[in-house]
Amino acid sequence: MRLEEDGPRVVLLDQRRLPDEEVELECRSAAEVAEAIRTMAVRGAPAIGVAAGYGLALAALRGEDLDAALDVLAAARPTAVNLAWALARLRPDPSPERARALHHAEVERCRRMAAHAAALFGPGTRALTHCNAGGLATGGYGSAVGALRAAWEQGLLERVLVDETRPLLQGARLTAWELEQAGIPHVVIADSAAASLMAQGDVDLVVTGADRIAANGDAANKIGTYSLAVLAAHHRIPLYVVAPTSSVDPSTPDGGAIPIEERDPAELTARFPAWNPAFDVTPAALIAAIVTEEGVHRPPYRFRA
Amino acid sequence: MRLEEDGPRVVLLDQRRLPDEEVELECRSAAEVAEAIRTMAVRGAPAIGVAAGYGLALAALRGEDLDAALDVLAAARPTAVNLAWALARLRPDPSPERARALHHAEVERCRRMAAHAAALFGPGTRALTHCNAGGLATGGYGSAVGALRAAWEQGLLERVLVDETRPLLQGARLTAWELEQAGIPHVVIADSAAASLMAQGDVDLVVTGADRIAANGDAANKIGTYSLAVLAAHHRIPLYVVAPTSSVDPSTPDGGAIPIEERDPAELTARFPAWNPAFDVTPAALIAAIVTEEGVHRPPYRFRA
Repeated sequence: MRLEEDGPRVVLLDQRRLPDEEVELECRSAAEVAEAIRTMAVRGAPAIGVAAGYGLALAALRGEDLDAALDVLAAARPTAVNLAWALARLRPDPSPERARALHHAEVERCRRMAAHAAALFGPGTRALTHCNAGGLATGGYGSAVGALRAAWEQGLLERVLVDETRPLLQGARLTAWELEQAGIPHVVIADSAAASLMAQGDVDLVVTGADRIAANGDAANKIGTYSLAVLAAHHRIPLYVVAPTSSVDPSTPDGGAIPIEERDPAELTARFPAWNPAFDVTPAALIAAIVTEEGVHRPPYRFRA
Repeated sequence: MRLEEDGPRVVLLDQRRLPDEEVELECRSAAEVAEAIRTMAVRGAPAIGVAAGYGLALAALRGEDLDAALDVLAAARPTAVNLAWALARLRPDPSPERARALHHAEVERCRRMAAHAAALFGPGTRALTHCNAGGLATGGYGSAVGALRAAWEQGLLERVLVDETRPLLQGARLTAWELEQAGIPHVVIADSAAASLMAQGDVDLVVTGADRIAANGDAANKIGTYSLAVLAAHHRIPLYVVAPTSSVDPSTPDGGAIPIEERDPAELTARFPAWNPAFDVTPAALIAAIVTEEGVHRPPYRFRA
């Protein structure tokens, strides 16, 4: 993901077309960046923050009305707090340099989190992850996948079970692709098969990202994360959330106050009535640790501004 | 599903092509019936028992070697006990009349079970079901879906949440289609969204079929059923298994002795390594009641031959 001042344009790898094709998408206005976020050409909480930052810088380069650009970008998706976070930081001076610095800082946060999170892995860990909290989701390196990379580099990771993550299959398309590129052994499973594997003793820990973490540690993430958290608790397996502080929203007291995006039911089926929430909320009580770039937070969680 | 002696052939509705097309498949040998079972043109534990019965009768009409026909039919799929059950009953006299009587008896069992199961529904029930335990799965009427039909006719059912049921989408394709035809309100959800709905108080009970019930009440059913059972227990929601006695296998002491079919990983993804078990086992302790045509069984379960 990058901003090209000559153009000007924001250039994104179109995640909708992975893993079949690696195609770049060029956005030539803040509205086009917002559309790329809305349609999930770019997705993942930190990555949409980075994209929105570039979108605002693009608007400034083009002489767009900055308040209008900010509004269209902020409204692109509701759940991840990173969008508002990045826009608030860029608004006073939406220069290309500052947008790039924000991007760079997010990737650095990932590397720091990953180092903290890898300390939670014992030798021979068989990890389960959901959706894609990888480099694609963060602008580089990854949050949960970053933790897996760090654990792999330290020889602590045996293999990764990857929930396919319906309906848009971010696990089967994106996480498997990233793990393949990193040379990390991985096996894709149906989301509903995770419980069986836990019962068989094939899962040592669950690790996911987050789209928004409330002050009390409740965490919104891809639909199915709450399901995994309940299943992990039943099988006495720890679930770790790995996310940068840009995903922490101290102004949201608990998960009940996090807006949950409902997407087009046709993502599931165009033939019958369907309900398609993109996220669920995992209560803090089911999260063994929340790892940010600051370190490993343990319950009770109290995030402050 | 029917046996036509003029031909002779077994004629099946090809479930792989529903709901887009209603196409009949003609099987002209026991091996072709076995192939239809293996490839899931016909699926559902009681339905594959009925199909195998017709397959054996077809073999007899054609003068095939009956032991060879029995072997190929019995080996078509491993988990549902109904296949062996039906073949054992038909073997002494594999006449068309007896194969039809077995089919008729299965549908009658469904109607009796459904009446018993509907008594577990309170007014305004919001039920969640998984996979397809409908008329398609049983030769007519359905087991879990039969219970939903009976509850609907009695004015006890508000609506049905239908797990889409990856990877082959029997919920989103088959159960939704059957409920639409029956005029029963239904909403398809991603398998991983069930937990969220339970947490929101939108699910009053879970009802599924079974492919094999062990003597102690452990029940093998479509992958994801165990996941739902753990989630239901966490949210204090009852999970009911509705299945005919032809799915009860008293010779299997517990779930650990039930063979679990692993299907082609390409059903999930052809691009990355994958693991694709078709079934999981729900321990009896997580099943609030098992409903057969004999009535409502409550724990501790002890099924005898």
